[in-house]
Amino acid sequence: MTDPRDALRAWFLGPRAENADLLERLVTEALRDHVFWRRNFHPEDGFTISERDRRAPGFDEAVATLTQELLGLLAELKRDVPFFSGRYKGHMVFEQTIASQVGYFAAMLYNPNNVALEAAPVTTRLELEVAHQLAGMIGYDPEGGWGHLTGGGTIANFEALWIARNVAYLPLAVRWAAADFGVEVPVRLPGGDVAPLAALDLHTLLNLHPSDALDAWQRLRAAGPPDVVARTLAGHTLGAAGYQEYSRRIAAAFPDPLPDSVVLVAATAHYSWEKVVRALGIGGDQLRHVPVDAHCRMDPDALWESLVALARSRTPVMALVSVCGSTEESAVDRLDQVLEVRARAAVELGLAFHVHSDACYGGYAASVTRDAAGARREGAAIRRDLGVPWPTDEWVAAITALGGADSVTIDPHKLGYVPYPAGAFLCRDRRARELVAVTPPYLAPAGNDPTGDEFLGRFILEGSKPGAAAAAVWLSHKVLPLDERGYGYLIGQTAIGARRLHAALAAADLGSFRAILLPEPDINIVCWLLTHPRCTTLGQVNELNEGIYRMMSLHRADAAPEYIITRTRFESPQYDGAVPPLLEQLAVGSLDEWRGPEGGLVVLRATVMDPFMAAPPPVPDHVAGFVGALRRAAVEAMQGEK
Amino acid sequence: MTDPRDALRAWFLGPRAENADLLERLVTEALRDHVFWRRNFHPEDGFTISERDRRAPGFDEAVATLTQELLGLLAELKRDVPFFSGRYKGHMVFEQTIASQVGYFAAMLYNPNNVALEAAPVTTRLELEVAHQLAGMIGYDPEGGWGHLTGGGTIANFEALWIARNVAYLPLAVRWAAADFGVEVPVRLPGGDVAPLAALDLHTLLNLHPSDALDAWQRLRAAGPPDVVARTLAGHTLGAAGYQEYSRRIAAAFPDPLPDSVVLVAATAHYSWEKVVRALGIGGDQLRHVPVDAHCRMDPDALWESLVALARSRTPVMALVSVCGSTEESAVDRLDQVLEVRARAAVELGLAFHVHSDACYGGYAASVTRDAAGARREGAAIRRDLGVPWPTDEWVAAITALGGADSVTIDPHKLGYVPYPAGAFLCRDRRARELVAVTPPYLAPAGNDPTGDEFLGRFILEGSKPGAAAAAVWLSHKVLPLDERGYGYLIGQTAIGARRLHAALAAADLGSFRAILLPEPDINIVCWLLTHPRCTTLGQVNELNEGIYRMMSLHRADAAPEYIITRTRFESPQYDGAVPPLLEQLAVGSLDEWRGPEGGLVVLRATVMDPFMAAPPPVPDHVAGFVGALRRAAVEAMQGEK
Repeated sequence: MTDPRDALRAWFLGPRAENADLLERLVTEALRDHVFWRRNFHPEDGFTISERDRRAPGFDEAVATLTQELLGLLAELKRDVPFFSGRYKGHMVFEQTIASQVGYFAAMLYNPNNVALEAAPVTTRLELEVAHQLAGMIGYDPEGGWGHLTGGGTIANFEALWIARNVAYLPLAVRWAAADFGVEVPVRLPGGDVAPLAALDLHTLLNLHPSDALDAWQRLRAAGPPDVVARTLAGHTLGAAGYQEYSRRIAAAFPDPLPDSVVLVAATAHYSWEKVVRALGIGGDQLRHVPVDAHCRMDPDALWESLVALARSRTPVMALVSVCGSTEESAVDRLDQVLEVRARAAVELGLAFHVHSDACYGGYAASVTRDAAGARREGAAIRRDLGVPWPTDEWVAAITALGGADSVTIDPHKLGYVPYPAGAFLCRDRRARELVAVTPPYLAPAGNDPTGDEFLGRFILEGSKPGAAAAAVWLSHKVLPLDERGYGYLIGQTAIGARRLHAALAAADLGSFRAILLPEPDINIVCWLLTHPRCTTLGQVNELNEGIYRMMSLHRADAAPEYIITRTRFESPQYDGAVPPLLEQLAVGSLDEWRGPEGGLVVLRATVMDPFMAAPPPVPDHVAGFVGALRRAAVEAMQGEK
Repeated sequence: MTDPRDALRAWFLGPRAENADLLERLVTEALRDHVFWRRNFHPEDGFTISERDRRAPGFDEAVATLTQELLGLLAELKRDVPFFSGRYKGHMVFEQTIASQVGYFAAMLYNPNNVALEAAPVTTRLELEVAHQLAGMIGYDPEGGWGHLTGGGTIANFEALWIARNVAYLPLAVRWAAADFGVEVPVRLPGGDVAPLAALDLHTLLNLHPSDALDAWQRLRAAGPPDVVARTLAGHTLGAAGYQEYSRRIAAAFPDPLPDSVVLVAATAHYSWEKVVRALGIGGDQLRHVPVDAHCRMDPDALWESLVALARSRTPVMALVSVCGSTEESAVDRLDQVLEVRARAAVELGLAFHVHSDACYGGYAASVTRDAAGARREGAAIRRDLGVPWPTDEWVAAITALGGADSVTIDPHKLGYVPYPAGAFLCRDRRARELVAVTPPYLAPAGNDPTGDEFLGRFILEGSKPGAAAAAVWLSHKVLPLDERGYGYLIGQTAIGARRLHAALAAADLGSFRAILLPEPDINIVCWLLTHPRCTTLGQVNELNEGIYRMMSLHRADAAPEYIITRTRFESPQYDGAVPPLLEQLAVGSLDEWRGPEGGLVVLRATVMDPFMAAPPPVPDHVAGFVGALRRAAVEAMQGEK
C-alpha cells in the first residue's frame, strides 16, 4: 500500500508549485488525448478550418486579441488570494488535488452536461458513482439511498429541506388520494402502533417518521394503475396546490388549527438556512435555533426542552438540521445524541420529523473513521496512528450517526479539496426523490430507465450542470480513497495541524496581549480572541480583534498581510452556551452587555486545511510564523487605536 | 477591425482540433504563469515538498496511481458526445470558445470563490463586469440594474420569480410597516393616479407596478433610522412570516379574499418553471400557460384574454414569464407586444405585474442587433449583411423590448459558447435585490461597501461559486464582443445555417417519406417531422418519428449515429396554436385524436449552434449529409416497424 505520508506530497501542486512538471504533463496529456479524439470522429469529413484559413490576417488578429487578453487576465489574477499557501488560514479553501484539477480540465474539454445521460453518458455515471462512495462513507446503504452533486452546499441544503417538506406533507396527500380511491391506507405511528391514515388527526399526520410516510405512499400504489395513482396523488400535494390553497384545504379538513411547522437548526447553522426557509415559503420566523454548548455543538438537553415546548404548543417540526463541521468553528454536533432525542420524542411526545445533517464542511472527515476495506475504525486506533488525542470516541459516535440521518449534504469543494463547484446531496431513502420530480418532453428517456438515473434533471433543483465537476471529484476519490489511506489521512493531518496551532496560541508569548481560546476544534478551525489590559469594555475588545482581522486580511491596504485569517461575531441567543466561559476568561464586559444592541463578540478564526502544518520543521514553520504575525498585528491594531 | 469571417475560425478549437497548437500554447502559458506566481509569494518560506520527498517510493506510487486513473478517465471520455462536430445537432450545446476554455482553466488554478470579494478579489469584479455587459446588450441601464452569474438557467429563473414574489407582496409589508411608524406612504397606481397605501384594497395592493412598489418602499425609509425601518419592514414580509402565517395576516386585514396569485408563462416555457413554482410554494396549479401561435410565440391576443378573465375573477398575477428562444423551437416571443398588453391591462383592467423574460437560450442573440459602438442596428442592415431574410423587423422589436422587462435570464453556457456552469440573472431595478438579502457574520464586509457588491452571496440563492466561470465568460466577451463583430456574427451564422437546413429539408427528396416543417425558426432550432403513406394514424406517425430519433441519437445501439438530433412532444393545450397547421399538412389524425390521452405529436429537432453550417462546401457539407442521413434513418425506422 502506498504510504500516505509520501503520497501526500504528490497529491497537490505544492506551495512552491513543486509538482509543476507533474501537473503540466497530465494537463498536456489530457489536452492532446482530446485533440486526437476529435480527429478520429468521422475523419472523412475533412477539415473545416484549413491551414490557409489560419494564415488569413483576420485569423491572426483574433489570435493576437485572445493572447493579449489572456495575458491581461493572468496579470489580474496575480491579485488573487494565495489559498495554496500555508500563510492562508482564512475561509474553507486550500489548494485542490492535482487529480481534481486534471480531472476537471480533461472533462471540461468535452463539456458534458450532467442534466441527463444523453448529454453526459460518461460523467453522469461518474456522478452517481461518487454519490455512492460518499453514501458508503457516511454509512448509508448506497442501493436504498440516492445522491447527486450540486453546484454547492446551499443548493444541496435547499434540496434537503424541499424534500423534507414534501415528505412531511405526504401523509395528507396520501390520505386524500386514498379517499378518492375509497381505499384504506394503514401507517405506522411514532410510538409503533399502526392506524389507518383516515383515522388520524392533523397533528399525528404531520408527525409521522419519514420512512413511515413513504411506506404509506407505497401502500397507496395498490389502489389503481400506476399513472392514475400518481396523477391523483400529485393533485393532493403541496407542490401542486401551493401553500395558500393547501392551507385552506387543511383548514377545511381539520377545523382545529395547528401552529405553523417549524424548522429547528443548530445555532451554528450556516446563514444559507435563512435563505432556504424564506425562499421555500416556510418563513424565516419558523427557523428556530437550538442553543449550542461550550464546544459550539447542538445541546441535546436544549433540543429536548425545545421539543417538549413544541409538543405542548402542538407545533409540528418539519425538519431538524444538525451540523457536522460548523462554518465558524468546525463543531461536530453529537448527532448520535440528537437521534436519541428524536427517538425519545417519538415515544414520549408523539413527535416525528426529518433529521438532516449539514455536513457540507465536515462530511469528508468521516473518511478518518474508515479503513481500507471500508470498515469503521475505533477511536483508539485512529488516535494511536495520528499521535494526538483526536478524535474522541464521542466524535466517532457522532460521525457514525450520520448513517441515521434522513439526508446529509457534503461539499467536495470544501474538505474534498476539489475546485468549485461541487456540493453533494444524499438521502437515505431514494423513494423521496419522486416527490420533487418533473419531466420535460424533450428529455424523456427513450428506452427503459428502471432506475430513473438516465435523467438526473428530473429530481434536482438545477438543470444543466458541469459533468467536469463529477470527473474532478471522481478522479480525486480514485487517487485519495475515502478512508485512512486517502482523505482520512489528509484530514487527520489538518486536525493535527489545528491542534499544534491551538496549543501554540495557548502557550504563546504575546507580550501584554492575552489569547482567549475556544476549546480544541472538532475538526480543524481554531477560534480565539485577544485582549489587552487597555481594553476595558467589550466594545474595545471587539475593536481590537476587528483591527487584528484587518491587519491579517486582504483588507489591509498598506502591505500584504503576513498571514490571512477571518473573523466572525458570536451573538446571543445563538452562542449563549459558548460565550459565558469566554467572557469569564476575558474578565471584561458582562453577559448583559454582550447580549445588548452594541454587543456580540468578535472571534478570530484560522481554518487549517493545510495538511503540511501538522509537521514540524524543516517544512516552513507556519505555526511559529503565525503566532509571531498575530503578535505584530495586535501591536499594530492597538497603535491604530491611539 | 478584425474581419469576423476570418476570426470565426480562430475562436474555436475546431471540429478536427485544427487549432490544437493554439489551445495548448495558451493552456501551458496559463499554467506556467500560475506556477511562477506561487513561487513569488513569500519566497523566504522555502520548500514544503523537497526533491528528496519526490523520490520517495510512496510519492512515485501516488503519481503512478494518478497517471493510471487519468488514463482510465480519458479512455472513458472517448464515449462522450461529440458536441464539437457538425454532426451533432442535438441539445443546446456546441463546442466552447477557446477564450472561455483557457479563461476557465487559468482561473480554476486559483480557484476563486465568487461568493465574496474576500474570496475572489479579481473574478468577483469580472462577474460584475460581465453582468454589466449583458445588461447593456439587452438595453438595461447597467447602473440602475443589477446582475450576476448563476450555476445555470434554472437557478437564474428561480431568483427571478423569488424576487418577483417579494416585490409583489412588498406593498403589504410597506403598508404594515408604515402603520407601525404612523406615517402615510403614497404610491402610484397602474392607471397613473397616486393614493396612500393605507387606502388601497388588497387587489390594488397586489396590482402595483414593480417600480412603484419599490418607490413606495423608498418613501417609507424616511420614517426612521435605516436599521429600524429595515427591521420593521422585514418583520412584515412574506419571507419572514412564511406563506401560512402571511395568508392569515392577509385574511385578517382584508376580509374579502382573493384567489391565489398566478404565474403566467408562455406555453413553450422550460420545464424548470414547474420546479420553481413548486419549490417556492406558489404551487404548480398556479402556473398558467399562455397559448402560442403557429410560430410557437406567446399569442398576445390569448394573453389579453387571459388577463381579462383573471381581472374578472380578481386573480392577482404575480409574474408573467415570456420566452426569448424557447428550448424546443428557439421561438422568440413578441415581447414588445407582450409589454403593450401589460400597459393596456394597467389602464383598462387595473392589473400590474412583474414581466420576466426567460432568455436563457436566446439572450445572446441580442448581440446581432448591436454595432461596434453599442448602438442598435436596424433589421434591414442586419439582413443585408447576413444575406438572408432574417431577422425580421418584428424580431428586432421583440429583442429591443428586453430592456423593458423587469428581469431577464441569459445562459452564457448556451449561446455564449462557454463551458458549464454559467447562467446569468439580470434585473432592471437593483433595489429589488435587497428584498432577498441575508448577511452572515463571517462574511460581513469589513470596510465601506456602498455598492453592496463586496459580498454577492448576500443577494443570491447560491453561496460558494466558481470565479473561474466568470473568468471564462469575461475572456470570451473580450475576444467576441457582444455585437456584430463577435457574438452577433457568430449567432448570425447559426441562423443562416438553420435556414439552409430548413430549406434543404423542405426541398429534400426523401423517397416516399414526406417532411412537414414548422416555420423557419426565430433563431436556429429547426423542427419537423416525417410521415409516410403507410402511416395512417397519428400513433404510427409518432412511432415513425420516435424511431427516427432513436436512429439519430446515442440510443442507437448497433452503430454510431451519422447525425445526432433530439425530439420533443407537442401536447395540448400548450401547442394548440402550433399543431393545427401541422396536422393539416400531415392529413392524418384529428385534433381530437391529438388532444386525446394517447395523443401528442412527436417533433424532431436539430439545434444549429454550429456556425460552420452557414457556409457552402468546401467545408464539410453537413446540410446535404444531414438530409441523406435522415432519409436512411427513416427507411431503417420504417423497416424496424415491420
